[in-house]
Amino acid sequence: MMDEATQALHARITQGMPERLILAEMEDLRPYECDGLAVYRQLPRLVVLPETIEQVQHVLRSCCALGVPVVARGAGTGLSGGALPHADGVVLSLAKFNRVLAIDPLARTARVQPGVRNLAISQAAAAYGLYYAPDPSSQIACTIGGNVAENAGGVHCLKYGLTVHNIRALEVVTIDGERLRLGGEALDAAGYDLLALLTGSEGLLGVVVEVTVKLLPKPQLAQVVMASFDHVDVAGAAVARIIAAGITPGGLEMMDNGCIRAAEDYLHAGYPVEAAAILLCELDGTAEEVAEDLARVETLLREAGATALQVSRSEEERLRFWAGRKAAFPAVGRISPDYYCMDGTIPRRELPRVLNGIAALGEKYRLRVVNVFHAGDGNLHPLILFDGNAAGELERAEHLGAEILELCVAVGGAITGEHGVGFEKINQMCVQFAALELEQFHALKHAFDPQGLLNPGKAIPTLARCAEYGAMRVSRGELPFPELERF
Amino acid sequence: MMDEATQALHARITQGMPERLILAEMEDLRPYECDGLAVYRQLPRLVVLPETIEQVQHVLRSCCALGVPVVARGAGTGLSGGALPHADGVVLSLAKFNRVLAIDPLARTARVQPGVRNLAISQAAAAYGLYYAPDPSSQIACTIGGNVAENAGGVHCLKYGLTVHNIRALEVVTIDGERLRLGGEALDAAGYDLLALLTGSEGLLGVVVEVTVKLLPKPQLAQVVMASFDHVDVAGAAVARIIAAGITPGGLEMMDNGCIRAAEDYLHAGYPVEAAAILLCELDGTAEEVAEDLARVETLLREAGATALQVSRSEEERLRFWAGRKAAFPAVGRISPDYYCMDGTIPRRELPRVLNGIAALGEKYRLRVVNVFHAGDGNLHPLILFDGNAAGELERAEHLGAEILELCVAVGGAITGEHGVGFEKINQMCVQFAALELEQFHALKHAFDPQGLLNPGKAIPTLARCAEYGAMRVSRGELPFPELERF
Repeated sequence: MMDEATQALHARITQGMPERLILAEMEDLRPYECDGLAVYRQLPRLVVLPETIEQVQHVLRSCCALGVPVVARGAGTGLSGGALPHADGVVLSLAKFNRVLAIDPLARTARVQPGVRNLAISQAAAAYGLYYAPDPSSQIACTIGGNVAENAGGVHCLKYGLTVHNIRALEVVTIDGERLRLGGEALDAAGYDLLALLTGSEGLLGVVVEVTVKLLPKPQLAQVVMASFDHVDVAGAAVARIIAAGITPGGLEMMDNGCIRAAEDYLHAGYPVEAAAILLCELDGTAEEVAEDLARVETLLREAGATALQVSRSEEERLRFWAGRKAAFPAVGRISPDYYCMDGTIPRRELPRVLNGIAALGEKYRLRVVNVFHAGDGNLHPLILFDGNAAGELERAEHLGAEILELCVAVGGAITGEHGVGFEKINQMCVQFAALELEQFHALKHAFDPQGLLNPGKAIPTLARCAEYGAMRVSRGELPFPELERF
Repeated sequence: MMDEATQALHARITQGMPERLILAEMEDLRPYECDGLAVYRQLPRLVVLPETIEQVQHVLRSCCALGVPVVARGAGTGLSGGALPHADGVVLSLAKFNRVLAIDPLARTARVQPGVRNLAISQAAAAYGLYYAPDPSSQIACTIGGNVAENAGGVHCLKYGLTVHNIRALEVVTIDGERLRLGGEALDAAGYDLLALLTGSEGLLGVVVEVTVKLLPKPQLAQVVMASFDHVDVAGAAVARIIAAGITPGGLEMMDNGCIRAAEDYLHAGYPVEAAAILLCELDGTAEEVAEDLARVETLLREAGATALQVSRSEEERLRFWAGRKAAFPAVGRISPDYYCMDGTIPRRELPRVLNGIAALGEKYRLRVVNVFHAGDGNLHPLILFDGNAAGELERAEHLGAEILELCVAVGGAITGEHGVGFEKINQMCVQFAALELEQFHALKHAFDPQGLLNPGKAIPTLARCAEYGAMRVSRGELPFPELERF
């Protein structure tokens, strides 16, 4: 049974879109209660699945008029709780916006709806020898709209950049139902760079209803070298050597022993299970360029102390080397009842220090942490293993995660690399930013959404919340557990 | 003699910085009355030349308290009047912020003060085999702070991106004198992307006091092929072929006959003076990669109808090929008493149509236009030749320029590529953007500068001004001449 407020909202929304596109029953709402960060769950009042931009405008205008929060949602693969529903709000799913509208091989762009899957763009562009570069691990499932909201990255963003570097235009609907076109076909646009501002804004400034992405010519060849090391520090230093030598690999990834073993058990990719760490270094370009870079990288890795090197000799072998890395999260899911995937970014030079710090924090909280990350970017993904059924383990995992993020900030890094802040890291924003910077964020939010209806409680904490978090950290000497009831 | 308001301002500013850093005499103010767009001139009340960030904070706090406009200025090489002083305001010169603070070869970054010249960054980084990629024609003189304000480009931004793609962090002072750090050492930052928002904001949101730029490894080799064509349309179509073939040249520039002749007379670079147009296509990378791309480009150019090809066979020859292009503006300055350099961007496929349109507009206004541009990017720089001493020629040149920009908008392009909107193109912003989009820009400006003191009258027109401009265009069937008194 809908309560009165929900009934009023439902009645209003049905004025502008068919009732079949509005979900209100408990069993229909259930699939939307969380995103990829499933430890947080919340049912919304309603889920709407508009099919046209006009319907999106109508939903936003209705919510704006009634003061109802709106959480936009793509595929729900996000890992920071950015699409966690609001108890008083509407979930606006873009799932039905799933068409590739146009591919322009001369401009090297694709115009797509936000619900198109990341990988589907490259599949559609393949006929022209083009592809879309950013490749999150979830690229089979995640949508480009969600990629824009989180400024998603992937294995290849060391060389090819994050989402913000790979999009050219957005169409956005504001909370009052107006359409804005940001960016355009031309290389640069006049006016403030709202395109970049909206990218990574986690659904707090507007709802993306169309995306024009840049496409790149496919490299002629890509090869991967897999290097084994007997210590993670040594592997970290090897990353530094490659970069300092002026080489920009297509991807440069690290996995530690725990992660290597989990992946190998799961997929049998041929990983060296005795190694303390492996580096996967992909080089792409023309055949000659790859051969030359490969020779240099092999020498650098040996000099850096690699104990073994393997080079992919076929496309099949290259994909096998990557398969273990891409499946690292599910592989770890098999060795632990639960795991919690962190996402932080640090300056490359701090890799050894932070890896040692994470190990020490794991001991402090009596939890195992395995590491897999975009080493070239300094983008870490520590996976905290825990058992949600064991009393206190989830809380310990969250405290450990918070301390890892705060360690990233302490060494000059950031609390997110590609997953966003969402609901998960809202407290750590208080550590990352000064009050003055948060005030500027709020002023900017107010310029787009004065009532604060778009994804409230995510990404940017209130100053009151930060004061509370600061006081807790000081008085208890520990990190608080963020309670869902707070917002 | 200072008037009363200027005296009060002077007195206030001297409370926080030495008097020798404040200019108030007519002869001292004169060098600041215009930037590179010298047709517009205006003396400010005062020019201040702070030496420390604390002094910048003090100046901004003083202006904020007294409600005085502030125009920040780098080297004053801008071409859109962005640094044109305000009659009631202060010019805040960053000239004394001219130190390279640190170069980090592992992070591939340089931390510099905003008054450091663009080329000086690459010179400082050369010891590490690194360089800063964006290279405006004015790179010997222009400063990185100005580059950030205008989101500057250059010959190589087709492959390496604009300024926004090549910076990692900014330190900014707000109008109320507070310091904000935007971006950081890590690959990505949490919160809204204020780094991108500030880049290209033309001094309307804050004053940049430190910049961390990305550095790139120098390509091992670069070679240029110069192709001659007997028609500009054919050269335009050749650009399309190269891009569609999946090649991304380091630079891809076009010059038409008028520009070729002017450059050749000036510099004797060996340009073919009979050609209707030339393309300069630079390929960079490893020796093998360059050789392979060069062979493909030569074939594509011949198939596209090039009448002659020359390839640089030495670094000296490569620099000679570029010398004519880089000196195109001063070369044109020798053949005409005055010239007006436009800057618009169009989708690549529209090159032939827009080039023909520009020729037709030149005839309509009875003025000669020569063309030099970043063809690969679709970034045009038509140079309008006129004689400022001939009655009505400046007005005709300005009307012609306005119509060229509006043609760019009509084909889906933008009124700026790399020079910014500044004072020059404020009316064309009314053509580029709808009222709703301009309102969003104003809301955003208000979040940073509620009194509107930072560079007022530039970049973003008021809705009233746009209404007026629209009415003029309709009623008179002509374009108005922007009058300095208006702001």
